[in-house]
Amino acid sequence: MNLLKEKIVNEGKVLNDHVLKVDSFLNHQIDPFLMQEIGKEFAERFREAGVTKILTLESSGIAPSVMAGLYLGVPVVFARKRKSLTLSENLLTAGVYSFTKQEENTIAVSGSRFTNKDCVLIIDDFLANGQAAKGLVHLLEQAGSHLAGIGIVIEKSFQDGGGELRRKGIRVESLTRIDSLSGGAVLFAEEAEV
Amino acid sequence: MNLLKEKIVNEGKVLNDHVLKVDSFLNHQIDPFLMQEIGKEFAERFREAGVTKILTLESSGIAPSVMAGLYLGVPVVFARKRKSLTLSENLLTAGVYSFTKQEENTIAVSGSRFTNKDCVLIIDDFLANGQAAKGLVHLLEQAGSHLAGIGIVIEKSFQDGGGELRRKGIRVESLTRIDSLSGGAVLFAEEAEV
Repeated sequence: MNLLKEKIVNEGKVLNDHVLKVDSFLNHQIDPFLMQEIGKEFAERFREAGVTKILTLESSGIAPSVMAGLYLGVPVVFARKRKSLTLSENLLTAGVYSFTKQEENTIAVSGSRFTNKDCVLIIDDFLANGQAAKGLVHLLEQAGSHLAGIGIVIEKSFQDGGGELRRKGIRVESLTRIDSLSGGAVLFAEEAEV
Repeated sequence: MNLLKEKIVNEGKVLNDHVLKVDSFLNHQIDPFLMQEIGKEFAERFREAGVTKILTLESSGIAPSVMAGLYLGVPVVFARKRKSLTLSENLLTAGVYSFTKQEENTIAVSGSRFTNKDCVLIIDDFLANGQAAKGLVHLLEQAGSHLAGIGIVIEKSFQDGGGELRRKGIRVESLTRIDSLSGGAVLFAEEAEV
């Protein structure tokens, strides 16, 4: 994803050694053309995986997921973050600990959205310590759905979430991997490692 | 939008005289193909309006907005609903009263996302009493941006939000308008009125 790397280099802001701000094309303002390319790339990588649904987390995961769903021809479900849910009864919930805010939040999906016949691709914007991804995996475990894998737009490979998920045998496909944000600069992982 | 009407008829659930649940294709699970068609329709209706950006509200507004942004060739910005914002300084905020929850919430966008050179299309999933739309309009007023109009996926025309906005001279384009949900049935407004 050279287009994504260019965007990160040109528009990303390194706030400190751990935080990359991508508010101009992914997390607050969204670049629809970039999302389309990201969706095509996820679809290509998971084309043969038998995906029946995509699961993501509001809000920044929605745009790349909807584009991936379009090119895979499958629906997208977004988990909600708050407890004040207007979803139906039969909620599946999981706790997601936020190291930034030092608090645990609940994420939830309607249990009627997933069955043990589903083969689900999880998509999210960032992967760092893997808390959100693990919460989403836990939702699918409760539904008895099969996990096709996890698609990530930007992985901070200097944090352990990706490694931990891969060591569990989960297929994690990250469109970009960042090895370091030290000194205000984005250092991408070598292509060969991706 | 016959496809949208069919979806509403076949999959929408009328919970009471005021609430239509569309969790299977818009508000929780998303149908990406339908979103693409919705995006094309918004783009066609606002093609000549000189739109430079789309503004929506997390989370259900994001999918139709990103598709509209793709076909109009403009970026999308989503306002956040919570106060715990990781956005930059210089926030523009507005209060949005929720009649359902009987509480006022704050919505916010980064002030750096809009200028007085922007011509902005607001897109949202539902229009009922118009509180969310008015909040979004208020954000743009603070930025000094021009308002191209408001695009709505489903308008409950038996509530006054749409009428109120139109009486102010704002162009409101709703892809479907529902005149009544009485007796558990969806009654669409006559095409001629749309």
